[in-house]
Amino acid sequence: MLVVMQHDAVPSDIEGVCRAIREMGYTPMPMPGGQRTAIGLLGNDGRVDDSHIVGLPGVAQVIHVSKPYKQVSREWKPSNSVVTIAPGVHIGGDHVVVIAGPCSVESEEQIMTAARAVRAAGATALRGGAFKPRSSPYSFQGLGKRGLELLALVRRETGLPIVTEAMDEAGAELVAEYADCIQIGARNMQNYSLLKSVGRMNKPVLLKRGMAATINELLLSAEYILAEGNSQVILCERGVRSFDSAARNMFDLNAIPIVKKLSHLPIIADPSHGTGLRDKVIPMARAAVAAGADGILVEVHPTPDRALSDGAQSLYPEQFAGLMQELRAISEAIGRAGAPSPGTVEL
Amino acid sequence: MLVVMQHDAVPSDIEGVCRAIREMGYTPMPMPGGQRTAIGLLGNDGRVDDSHIVGLPGVAQVIHVSKPYKQVSREWKPSNSVVTIAPGVHIGGDHVVVIAGPCSVESEEQIMTAARAVRAAGATALRGGAFKPRSSPYSFQGLGKRGLELLALVRRETGLPIVTEAMDEAGAELVAEYADCIQIGARNMQNYSLLKSVGRMNKPVLLKRGMAATINELLLSAEYILAEGNSQVILCERGVRSFDSAARNMFDLNAIPIVKKLSHLPIIADPSHGTGLRDKVIPMARAAVAAGADGILVEVHPTPDRALSDGAQSLYPEQFAGLMQELRAISEAIGRAGAPSPGTVEL
Amino acid sequence: MLVVMQHDAVPSDIEGVCRAIREMGYTPMPMPGGQRTAIGLLGNDGRVDDSHIVGLPGVAQVIHVSKPYKQVSREWKPSNSVVTIAPGVHIGGDHVVVIAGPCSVESEEQIMTAARAVRAAGATALRGGAFKPRSSPYSFQGLGKRGLELLALVRRETGLPIVTEAMDEAGAELVAEYADCIQIGARNMQNYSLLKSVGRMNKPVLLKRGMAATINELLLSAEYILAEGNSQVILCERGVRSFDSAARNMFDLNAIPIVKKLSHLPIIADPSHGTGLRDKVIPMARAAVAAGADGILVEVHPTPDRALSDGAQSLYPEQFAGLMQELRAISEAIGRAGAPSPGTVEL
Amino acid sequence: MLVVMQHDAVPSDIEGVCRAIREMGYTPMPMPGGQRTAIGLLGNDGRVDDSHIVGLPGVAQVIHVSKPYKQVSREWKPSNSVVTIAPGVHIGGDHVVVIAGPCSVESEEQIMTAARAVRAAGATALRGGAFKPRSSPYSFQGLGKRGLELLALVRRETGLPIVTEAMDEAGAELVAEYADCIQIGARNMQNYSLLKSVGRMNKPVLLKRGMAATINELLLSAEYILAEGNSQVILCERGVRSFDSAARNMFDLNAIPIVKKLSHLPIIADPSHGTGLRDKVIPMARAAVAAGADGILVEVHPTPDRALSDGAQSLYPEQFAGLMQELRAISEAIGRAGAPSPGTVEL
Repeated sequence: MLVVMQHDAVPSDIEGVCRAIREMGYTPMPMPGGQRTAIGLLGNDGRVDDSHIVGLPGVAQVIHVSKPYKQVSREWKPSNSVVTIAPGVHIGGDHVVVIAGPCSVESEEQIMTAARAVRAAGATALRGGAFKPRSSPYSFQGLGKRGLELLALVRRETGLPIVTEAMDEAGAELVAEYADCIQIGARNMQNYSLLKSVGRMNKPVLLKRGMAATINELLLSAEYILAEGNSQVILCERGVRSFDSAARNMFDLNAIPIVKKLSHLPIIADPSHGTGLRDKVIPMARAAVAAGADGILVEVHPTPDRALSDGAQSLYPEQFAGLMQELRAISEAIGRAGAPSPGTVEL
Repeated sequence: MLVVMQHDAVPSDIEGVCRAIREMGYTPMPMPGGQRTAIGLLGNDGRVDDSHIVGLPGVAQVIHVSKPYKQVSREWKPSNSVVTIAPGVHIGGDHVVVIAGPCSVESEEQIMTAARAVRAAGATALRGGAFKPRSSPYSFQGLGKRGLELLALVRRETGLPIVTEAMDEAGAELVAEYADCIQIGARNMQNYSLLKSVGRMNKPVLLKRGMAATINELLLSAEYILAEGNSQVILCERGVRSFDSAARNMFDLNAIPIVKKLSHLPIIADPSHGTGLRDKVIPMARAAVAAGADGILVEVHPTPDRALSDGAQSLYPEQFAGLMQELRAISEAIGRAGAPSPGTVEL
Repeated sequence: MLVVMQHDAVPSDIEGVCRAIREMGYTPMPMPGGQRTAIGLLGNDGRVDDSHIVGLPGVAQVIHVSKPYKQVSREWKPSNSVVTIAPGVHIGGDHVVVIAGPCSVESEEQIMTAARAVRAAGATALRGGAFKPRSSPYSFQGLGKRGLELLALVRRETGLPIVTEAMDEAGAELVAEYADCIQIGARNMQNYSLLKSVGRMNKPVLLKRGMAATINELLLSAEYILAEGNSQVILCERGVRSFDSAARNMFDLNAIPIVKKLSHLPIIADPSHGTGLRDKVIPMARAAVAAGADGILVEVHPTPDRALSDGAQSLYPEQFAGLMQELRAISEAIGRAGAPSPGTVEL
Repeated sequence: MLVVMQHDAVPSDIEGVCRAIREMGYTPMPMPGGQRTAIGLLGNDGRVDDSHIVGLPGVAQVIHVSKPYKQVSREWKPSNSVVTIAPGVHIGGDHVVVIAGPCSVESEEQIMTAARAVRAAGATALRGGAFKPRSSPYSFQGLGKRGLELLALVRRETGLPIVTEAMDEAGAELVAEYADCIQIGARNMQNYSLLKSVGRMNKPVLLKRGMAATINELLLSAEYILAEGNSQVILCERGVRSFDSAARNMFDLNAIPIVKKLSHLPIIADPSHGTGLRDKVIPMARAAVAAGADGILVEVHPTPDRALSDGAQSLYPEQFAGLMQELRAISEAIGRAGAPSPGTVEL
């Protein structure tokens, strides 16, 4: 931490900051400069809560040099983490994985048809919501426990591992019984009670970036889960809010290489929410893989025109099959994937 | 709802949209134009989930004419709602209220000193966090239940009603036992499980705008609470995320007159989080009242330099006393307040 | 400047940075820490161009401690600057000034009627565009030189000084002949050729903040003007771009106290563009004055329903007269204005 | 255009809107609905200036159905436009082009070395700034006319066509004498005087998206150029401003497929400015091509550590050569490029 003093700070201001640093249990190191004095804080392990320092007399600015997170950082663990969500299904390794399926589980027929179609095209896992966070209380909110039962049924039939969202602590326990990976949605990225609760489970967690969360905050939210003991975390870029209404979200693919440098955790991308429109999903799914994503989370529906939610951004099964071929070619172009062996479900 | 077709949409595209509208239980009304056809949907009460329509062949755009919320709208209830958080303490009426106190409850002495100071200066209610949502798992997270007990003690001593945050369903039940108004923080504005849970309680709720929530989404989140039966909701503008790091947040005071027009619910403003720096809190508190806010939520700490959280944006008690005088003068300048009667705690 | 090295930087990385700093003509000061080394740069006067340093091997981050601007800063000149746009019309002093008038000059009758109305209500100066930057090439672009002639005519009649926009170098020279203050619009805030050109003139300049400009960038653009020799610069907050379409812009009133702290230049606010809707202009004009703005730039049109541009955000003359009274009361409430002496045109 | 009336609008409000529409020369079509009346405007060709309508009594909202631009739209010209910047160098066709070179022209040796390196690796054209818009007046502003002369010299030597920026009308005329394509930078995207001036030239224009410009505004700025008679416009996504400081900009690759659908103009992407950091440039250049960009504008410097501007985001020549191979493979993976014929300089 570096405390930059104002141009006209007086010696008692400087002493005041040094005293505050000592009271926090650290050692201050004043560095007089030509224009102004700066004061370093030595011994900081990145977790200092210094919010009051910036308000002390004579302080111009407080600059954080250490990162506020620990266990998720690449400095803590230099090699890539690989999260295994089911036997043979690894995220963060050499292969690029594809998790596909409808936005919501709507009926046995719908979810079974969807699962078979994405399985046939080479998907690695099945997505499908049983609990749906919706902006409006009057929108379809998911089938709840019945949706989880249908997902379990489909897994038995197709062998596809299941990724599905939990919205609260009770829901997370239920999801953990039925699914292979618990998804935390964008709206709950800073629901710390929920993060702690899945941090105490022994189940992979897919953590989506919040609608206007910085990458730093995404990593801090992941740190909440690791701090409770669960290191099986997969991050997901899904588009953020912007000033432009031309797309539902602004898909921040820069996040892929940035997270790769800062953290050892795997990161995938969701071009369905990242764009919001079917005909943009395909080019942006390709872009995400080209940017280095460990996988793709994509909405596919047997009959998008009749979907109860997110129909406009869901791919038709035949579009998805074409996309899979392109993704394979791009993965190879960047030296990533290698063709999937037929017995496995990876790309 | 209005469905705008593409320039080159063919008759079968138009018929496809009409069919989809009929399947949803509404009546389509095609309107051929010079450049393109538009199709109106009649009978919509604002709660249609039409997300799949925009993906149909030939559709250029779907435009929503009706608002997606109902009970929070001024069309539903034209007159201002007044929320009473304690006997004689009304928010949304003629008087401008001031809810002041420290970010967190830290100790009996700290919260008692703070409460007496803000009471003496004329505050209407006491704020103070027992459960603190923090970006980092390593930051101080509040005293929990012990904090609530101290707040109850202070209320008995000072007569100030208590506003404090709940972060999850269990916490909300606990807060409801001790406090007069349950605060839902910015990070939980779209935690729908929590919103439904406080919607089932008979307790005023202070709902803060999310970090990058639109005003529309803020109103939809309030709708979640009203839809469960609790209409005692106070909205709060607390600054949103922006591209400029010059302040902690961008304080969107436009939200005050905009919400006043769209909704009957009271809205207050939090200049402490809205700016993040003590010397900006005072001018922006004045600005919020001048813009028409029904009240102010402001951080005051007996010794900000030693605060465990948000010290840099907490006012010193003597600054707060000076601010109260300015707020009174501005309230009168806009024909709002009238001096508070000494026996009450309003401004 | 502080160069923060990566956790795993090797000695040759550190030496590389020190060498680069020496090649720039400065002195490096390495500071080894527990987690990582930081390297200070001594002798920096804030104008170092160090963009290549962040790309050197082992560098994690480059932190700027000095501000990149000089002459506009309060450190350079501690006392407030007062800009005189006409005899007796000072901006940045004790009085709050009001510059009012239509978006565009449309005809002699329109501008004369508008000027008389705002003069009667107590406005300090007249605004009105002769050259209009419009997003669409097909929108009304202003009367050009004829508009300037009309403005000069109106000044002779009413005594009101004129503020009007220039869009390019040739236009600036023309505006300087006719008007009292040259306005640089938001879209041209970083048109450096234009900034330099008005910097070489001896004429007050009203510089509007760009649509997504940081406060830092606004000050740097003002620095361009001062660096050429013209220190008569008035800054103007006019709303910035945001994710919320509820208003035309997000009106960033935090900018008022922030600029006041960083710079000696006066700053005014434009609630017409800052909100975009007539019924929001009045509360937000009040808020801007309460926040400490040195003045208000506001659109008033004799017949807003027939305005050729910005009709929806223009006040009716009678609304403007009511606003003037409220602004006077708020100015006094914050110890600012004092009633205007009848002979002058200040508030 | 559709005018949505408020819930409680009275018949005289509706008649007022109809009258205003007739005064504009169009035909109003009132459509009474269950909740509210809407009024269509027939005959609108997309260029109606209706800003005053939204302020009329009883109006809730004005919705634009037609697009505000004409000649740049795909409805105006369904087939892709191909812009030829030099014999054999086409942008917008089957091949993906690469325009590479240093941020600024610094010296004959520097630009010649850079040009030879990018030529050898397969670049299609050379970029290099002679006039540099910089946030600070104290930063290096380019070599000016001498820079243009060096670029012309290098073109004679290497055969690479030249793309370089103009900042004002006089500069544009000079650039047009020396270069093959005039670049308009992000800060000047809404400098309409400059846009009109290049619109009157017979020279290809590379128009970069403004720092916080919507895609709609980018297309409107291009419309300014086409409206003056010059249809040789290439658009360029270069990253936009966001709330996250993790990268210099947020690289909005969604813009690629969105522009492709709305407009016939070619669009390329600039991963150097889009990310701001060398190690992010390579994955994001790959992503841009995968998303369907017609080309890449990328900074390459012989010795980035000594660059006078943008060193941190400039590639080393050997990195660029590696990137070219990856881009070729990705182009083929999406059925785009086909190998470049050796005699041409396309990818």
